[in-house]
Amino acid sequence: MKQERFILDTDPGIDDALTILYALASPEVRMEAITVVNGNCPMKQGVINALSVLELLNASSIPVAAGMDRPLVLPVVNAEVTHGKNGLGYAELPTPHTKPHQNHAVELIKDYVLENPGEISIVAIGPLTNIAMLVRLYPQVVGKVKHLYIMGGAINHCGNMTPQAEFNIYCDPHATHIVFHSGIPFTLVPLDVTYQTLMTEEDLERINQVHSPVSEFIVKSSRYVMEFLSESQAVKGCALNDPLALAALFQSHLLDISHLVLDVDTNQGVSMGKTFADFYNYEQKTENGYVALDVRARDFVELFIDRMIEISQ
Amino acid sequence: MKQERFILDTDPGIDDALTILYALASPEVRMEAITVVNGNCPMKQGVINALSVLELLNASSIPVAAGMDRPLVLPVVNAEVTHGKNGLGYAELPTPHTKPHQNHAVELIKDYVLENPGEISIVAIGPLTNIAMLVRLYPQVVGKVKHLYIMGGAINHCGNMTPQAEFNIYCDPHATHIVFHSGIPFTLVPLDVTYQTLMTEEDLERINQVHSPVSEFIVKSSRYVMEFLSESQAVKGCALNDPLALAALFQSHLLDISHLVLDVDTNQGVSMGKTFADFYNYEQKTENGYVALDVRARDFVELFIDRMIEISQ
Amino acid sequence: MKQERFILDTDPGIDDALTILYALASPEVRMEAITVVNGNCPMKQGVINALSVLELLNASSIPVAAGMDRPLVLPVVNAEVTHGKNGLGYAELPTPHTKPHQNHAVELIKDYVLENPGEISIVAIGPLTNIAMLVRLYPQVVGKVKHLYIMGGAINHCGNMTPQAEFNIYCDPHATHIVFHSGIPFTLVPLDVTYQTLMTEEDLERINQVHSPVSEFIVKSSRYVMEFLSESQAVKGCALNDPLALAALFQSHLLDISHLVLDVDTNQGVSMGKTFADFYNYEQKTENGYVALDVRARDFVELFIDRMIEISQ
Amino acid sequence: MKQERFILDTDPGIDDALTILYALASPEVRMEAITVVNGNCPMKQGVINALSVLELLNASSIPVAAGMDRPLVLPVVNAEVTHGKNGLGYAELPTPHTKPHQNHAVELIKDYVLENPGEISIVAIGPLTNIAMLVRLYPQVVGKVKHLYIMGGAINHCGNMTPQAEFNIYCDPHATHIVFHSGIPFTLVPLDVTYQTLMTEEDLERINQVHSPVSEFIVKSSRYVMEFLSESQAVKGCALNDPLALAALFQSHLLDISHLVLDVDTNQGVSMGKTFADFYNYEQKTENGYVALDVRARDFVELFIDRMIEISQ
Repeated sequence: MKQERFILDTDPGIDDALTILYALASPEVRMEAITVVNGNCPMKQGVINALSVLELLNASSIPVAAGMDRPLVLPVVNAEVTHGKNGLGYAELPTPHTKPHQNHAVELIKDYVLENPGEISIVAIGPLTNIAMLVRLYPQVVGKVKHLYIMGGAINHCGNMTPQAEFNIYCDPHATHIVFHSGIPFTLVPLDVTYQTLMTEEDLERINQVHSPVSEFIVKSSRYVMEFLSESQAVKGCALNDPLALAALFQSHLLDISHLVLDVDTNQGVSMGKTFADFYNYEQKTENGYVALDVRARDFVELFIDRMIEISQ
Repeated sequence: MKQERFILDTDPGIDDALTILYALASPEVRMEAITVVNGNCPMKQGVINALSVLELLNASSIPVAAGMDRPLVLPVVNAEVTHGKNGLGYAELPTPHTKPHQNHAVELIKDYVLENPGEISIVAIGPLTNIAMLVRLYPQVVGKVKHLYIMGGAINHCGNMTPQAEFNIYCDPHATHIVFHSGIPFTLVPLDVTYQTLMTEEDLERINQVHSPVSEFIVKSSRYVMEFLSESQAVKGCALNDPLALAALFQSHLLDISHLVLDVDTNQGVSMGKTFADFYNYEQKTENGYVALDVRARDFVELFIDRMIEISQ
Repeated sequence: MKQERFILDTDPGIDDALTILYALASPEVRMEAITVVNGNCPMKQGVINALSVLELLNASSIPVAAGMDRPLVLPVVNAEVTHGKNGLGYAELPTPHTKPHQNHAVELIKDYVLENPGEISIVAIGPLTNIAMLVRLYPQVVGKVKHLYIMGGAINHCGNMTPQAEFNIYCDPHATHIVFHSGIPFTLVPLDVTYQTLMTEEDLERINQVHSPVSEFIVKSSRYVMEFLSESQAVKGCALNDPLALAALFQSHLLDISHLVLDVDTNQGVSMGKTFADFYNYEQKTENGYVALDVRARDFVELFIDRMIEISQ
Repeated sequence: MKQERFILDTDPGIDDALTILYALASPEVRMEAITVVNGNCPMKQGVINALSVLELLNASSIPVAAGMDRPLVLPVVNAEVTHGKNGLGYAELPTPHTKPHQNHAVELIKDYVLENPGEISIVAIGPLTNIAMLVRLYPQVVGKVKHLYIMGGAINHCGNMTPQAEFNIYCDPHATHIVFHSGIPFTLVPLDVTYQTLMTEEDLERINQVHSPVSEFIVKSSRYVMEFLSESQAVKGCALNDPLALAALFQSHLLDISHLVLDVDTNQGVSMGKTFADFYNYEQKTENGYVALDVRARDFVELFIDRMIEISQ
């Protein structure tokens, strides 16, 4: 079996950490590097979190590169309320010993992609600032990224940041606009599907029976999100937003995917950060992206829990 | 049984004409008057169409009042491509003998409402320009309209005019903003439900077997929409947009209705005319409207077809 | 000499009151009626202020009609900070004995214009909500208004409400858009000229030497504005915004006026309410309005002071 | 005399070429490098033009670096109509022998600035895309750029691209927003002053009397702009937009400069790219930039012509 090679671009973040775990637990994929962007938590904290999680998993050989510490045009937004003060909910990990990679995230991605043309996918589960900078500074990478998987947006679903906008896209709608129109082949994994893939209290209980530092980390971090979603959005469970974007890379049979004209509103006002598809193609443009509009939700959650239990043991 | 009394505010329009038929076929309701607004066709043509349809049904005693012939702020938009050159598809009706009411639509509605406080509902199935003018010119009607039913918008569904906007709202987003925030209790019947209620070729065939001027009118007008929707949006059937808004008045058991904070984007740009709900109430506002988000679609279509057959005989 | 007949549409307001005085002091014009709109103060207070000022001048035969009590689309904005709690600065007038006219402002203007086609000008020195409603509800008046003079906007000057927007236009940019594109011939009198026509402390002193209730009113009300402008905008004097718009009706030789394509930004965001001219006519549209871009400022102020002294005696 | 060291960031462009000449003719300044950005002409053509002009002046030792070939978010806009097919009007220069610098413009600027902290100014006379990328990718340069001079914007003047927007800012309003809020100290040189500094037919005639390849270049390129401005904007002369921005670096006594809160509208719609100052500081922010609002225009033009004659000889 040939492993899918990818770089994880992330703002860790609880479900970002779960995605790192999911990647390490999945032999189908090979995570070449982690690049960090401002989003769920400030970029510098995100680098620390990524390094800490890798150390927890004895995976510190995977390079972690610091990236953009703020959105392209708009002011910094973070999500302390969702991910807790340090970005990992109730979980607390020791300060990491490993140092981040010396190169900037944008440089690191560029080098990997140009040295392995057509081989490397990107799974982007934070705001798209790093990827937008990559596209503008090194347009030659566009034809050489294998595929880009994006956790973000809300097509027929409401937003989780404003009535219309999902958090990652809201943080940097201008970067999103750049990426959507860059020519990189991409698949959007929006709230339409990720808010169906809910890890329940019973699921957490199964993981909790393992009794290990890893299982403890999963439970403590996830419980924080679970409480937040329950209170603020009456969602019953921990939405596996980011892990599902990774699943799109190697378990795409779980998703119903459409090829459409996709765009984002970058204007100030009530629709800023709204992502939308032109289903009837009024403007007769060429489809620029793929988007997951339905999911075998429980199938995915079970697969995910199994892997979490494996990696906890 | 007490009849629900209402005024139909309309831009006839094929499914507007079907709504007039549906009202006349339904003993549960009493259509007190028809007021016309620019929309599917120019306002003057809409008045002619309303009068013609009433004559076809021997219902010319119902007054028809001319209203706003253009949107509040934006330029005139019509939908010739959907509703045909005269607004009634392939159907052609004789020039009406009846004259329109001498009062302006806004005056007529105001008089009805103030003379019958709490008794009169409005079913608005065109752009909301007349209703917005009513609200601003006669704020005293606000507490005296029984309820306002609006065909318009697209909440979790894509638009039918732009990727995000439904036709009625797109025509006059500023009027929509006024009405949504007016204090009049309203129920929005958006594309989310109306694009489920499709009258099929087989349904038309059933009506066609009656052989009368009325059945002929229904079939000829509906077929035009059916062809348009099939070609432009791959929708298989004639969406009963406007009749479903009337159904909300007296057959609300067919609909799943939520009480939410509703709003519309009035800015220039890609989201102009987008209607949206704040499902998680991020901004902690008081709910300002009801919205139908699901429908027993086939149940409604069958009820509708039965009434169409009755009135054709 | 034939008097210029006009209706004053106003939101009194200190410089609005001065405009009423200026009209009554000027034999060149005949003020047929006053219509009130929300703006500097709430509409109801504005009606009281208009009636009080007319009583002070023994001019209660001039009808005062209540109009729109809020902008078309946006929420109510008032200018208590500029015009004081009751809208007339430090001046206090007795509660008026006269009642407002029974008709709505929009009806009153419509009737005057249609009964005197081509004879009646409108001098609009508040937000344009009344005029926009008139245009939309009675489009037949468009060709019959002699001319419309508008105090509002800022073309090559900064705003006095936001960095870009002047107060009257900011209050109701949608109404402004309607009026600018209505076909009514209009002249805009923006801050570019009105912020040059400053009544100074010395001017006030001259008026103050008359010792009458009228001179006292002028001085007490104007001083309030003067203090506000000095503190907030370092403007040294009381800008005669509204009186200058009346001057455009009968003393247009004081102004340099250009025929241009004029427009306003109605979008949410930093430029909402910004008025602008297309000086180079990039879009090759037909000129829709006149705009005063320069003024013999001191000439005007002297003329104005003379009339204020006359009417005070 | 200590020379002012600077990097010229440019989109050559006729008045860009004149700025290169002006720099080489002025002993007060030392142009360390030229960086090119998309704007007046496509970036690649701009690099050729910069190299050709340097060869014409025997100044090929100055490095020229290719930069951003498109705006951050918006599609590419060029100004062929103003600057001719190849960007230099009626002038035609031989294909250059020199090659551009191997580094990207953003890298080159970063290296110069970090190696000479506080020593290097930037004179940016095209869209601000290079500078915005610099700021975001290397935030550490912010405190180390001596000063940034920007030709761009229109404060109390109308635009030259749309009614409100100047060309450089219109091309990339998002980059402008980034730069204005970056913390780099900057001076804006807008159309308010540059449209006063007009090189006339008589001025060109003086230069033309020199009879050299350089004077021929100046005359042939400038005449193209002159004809365009005369036809499209009734401007009589060649506006020295870009040279005046260089003058701000070493002849600032010619300009009246204010310290203000400056911003730009990035929204779609009629005000996109509008630059504005908050003269009354409504929002009580700290001043973020300097802006030239008046100029000793003829003084500057004479100084400029003298230098053009010198360098032509």
